[in-house]
Amino acid sequence: MRGTMLYGPRDMRFEERPDPTLIDPTDAIIRISAACVCGSDLWPYRGLEPVTQPQPMGHEYCGMVEEVGSAVKHIKPGQFVVGSFASSDNTCPNCQFGYQSSCIHREFLSGAQAPVFRVPLADGTLVATPSVPSADVIPSLLTTSDVLGTGWFAADAANVKPGATVVVVGDGAVGLLGVLSARQMGAERIIVMSRHESRQKLARAFGATDVVAERGDEGVARIMDMTNGIGADSALECVGTQEVMMQAIRSTRKGGYVSFVGVPHGVELNGEHLFFSHVHLHGGPATVRRYLPMLIDLVWNGKINPGKVFDLELPMAQVAEGYRAMDERRAIKVLLWP
Amino acid sequence: MRGTMLYGPRDMRFEERPDPTLIDPTDAIIRISAACVCGSDLWPYRGLEPVTQPQPMGHEYCGMVEEVGSAVKHIKPGQFVVGSFASSDNTCPNCQFGYQSSCIHREFLSGAQAPVFRVPLADGTLVATPSVPSADVIPSLLTTSDVLGTGWFAADAANVKPGATVVVVGDGAVGLLGVLSARQMGAERIIVMSRHESRQKLARAFGATDVVAERGDEGVARIMDMTNGIGADSALECVGTQEVMMQAIRSTRKGGYVSFVGVPHGVELNGEHLFFSHVHLHGGPATVRRYLPMLIDLVWNGKINPGKVFDLELPMAQVAEGYRAMDERRAIKVLLWP
Repeated sequence: MRGTMLYGPRDMRFEERPDPTLIDPTDAIIRISAACVCGSDLWPYRGLEPVTQPQPMGHEYCGMVEEVGSAVKHIKPGQFVVGSFASSDNTCPNCQFGYQSSCIHREFLSGAQAPVFRVPLADGTLVATPSVPSADVIPSLLTTSDVLGTGWFAADAANVKPGATVVVVGDGAVGLLGVLSARQMGAERIIVMSRHESRQKLARAFGATDVVAERGDEGVARIMDMTNGIGADSALECVGTQEVMMQAIRSTRKGGYVSFVGVPHGVELNGEHLFFSHVHLHGGPATVRRYLPMLIDLVWNGKINPGKVFDLELPMAQVAEGYRAMDERRAIKVLLWP
Repeated sequence: MRGTMLYGPRDMRFEERPDPTLIDPTDAIIRISAACVCGSDLWPYRGLEPVTQPQPMGHEYCGMVEEVGSAVKHIKPGQFVVGSFASSDNTCPNCQFGYQSSCIHREFLSGAQAPVFRVPLADGTLVATPSVPSADVIPSLLTTSDVLGTGWFAADAANVKPGATVVVVGDGAVGLLGVLSARQMGAERIIVMSRHESRQKLARAFGATDVVAERGDEGVARIMDMTNGIGADSALECVGTQEVMMQAIRSTRKGGYVSFVGVPHGVELNGEHLFFSHVHLHGGPATVRRYLPMLIDLVWNGKINPGKVFDLELPMAQVAEGYRAMDERRAIKVLLWP
């Protein structure tokens, strides 16, 4: 098969690779129905994470099970499945607490931007849909694998409750689906910080009630104006930079909740500032596996349509153009068809 | 009157001062029944916070109301009261959310290590006891003003639940009363990190089930051994240093809760480390006023005896010796009688 490999900054190749095969008896082999490019793929693409050797890319996926190892009991060939970007046995103590993305046997998966993909710990990582979906629902199902699950975790970790005022900092795909998630959780007011018209529009479609284009001190001042000087109940940090983290913390009321779901790059929190901010802080690799059954159900029953986040669809062979479009912010989120 | 003044590092004087008088109509004047020395008083005492001019010391207090301003409606002369170390109107949005120590009209009080003390926002800051207490209960009532309230906040912010495994990092008075608080909240296992015999003993009296003397990597390894490699459900950071904060975070399981209640001095949190630790983090100035009615009730009804934390009692005129004893860790907590 041909698969996606990153050789170095902006050096993306779709090239001949060995077909994945079962390695461990807990593995499954999936024929990919659709994959996509993640915001976190852009860190190594941009050279902000080192690439020491050519690496297979992609960790958001759904597709048909082709083959399973001898120890796989629940996942079966012929099923359509979605899986988390992180493998999990779904039985260890961390999994039982709902933190499957910190499973003691966790691997961060990669190589899903290819037509065939090996998934370890298949029974604990994958969730089957009720039947094989029609093509039009595949984009939305694909989002549950990471980008929607991460947006959901952002809203959940920020303790979004019915009636709450929520600030979403970051208008990437995760932030936009954080908006959708906050809306599902009953937030009354959802303020998205964005200065890009197409993203503002999608945010409103997903449930944002307000848009703030200002950043930094001005952005904080706007949020304070909008909340009678008190701050938001919840803020979702959906990027992973110092500026965005500070924006989120400073926009939150005393006793409010800040989540952070973008892998932090160069973020340092001053203890004294955090102390007097009086916020709750929670983040980490999104606990996608915890939410998968529920999110698949919401998609399956047409309650949500997160697939709208894809504004560019390409054949996988054009993956390099997909990365370029996201890097240059010409596309919000790129779907890849095998 | 004579009151306690800090002139510079370790330069503590008990000297003639003007008697406090009503300034604002919301003030009350209290005749102090007992005051004490706080761990946070040691920061400026040790020169770790600048002292630019002589400053009145002390913010833990209880006593008899002598006089109230014209706008004070609920607190009355002749009542015995306890108040928070931070004043609050108890009506602003932050107060309504239970974050009275971030009241929009907050002042951090000082000057309570003296026989007479002015308390601003008396109605929102002070809580009266059912009647005038007997002398033997005064030490325990005094703790509710800060040190117990802070230990309680530490346990509450670390989400201590019945059956939980809790690690308390820091064997100062706040940590020891964090142990007592975790016990009241139903924690099953309470591990205190301490290498001082008298403190270990008091921790056990307050409900600690285990003592760990190791620190750093060894301390973390011990906690992991004791929790089947998973970590504690909750950790209470009760000091305010980088070392103790890291000890708390690293001792906590994925999805667990870390609180921090010591004013951080030189604490910097790496965003990526915090992200992969997957903990919840919450701290700040303890919301003492939220807990005061409940804590006074527990003391009044003899359910808890936090006053045992005082292992040295001195007349206020010997306040300098009280600071020395705490600075040199000869005393856990020093009570001052006027």
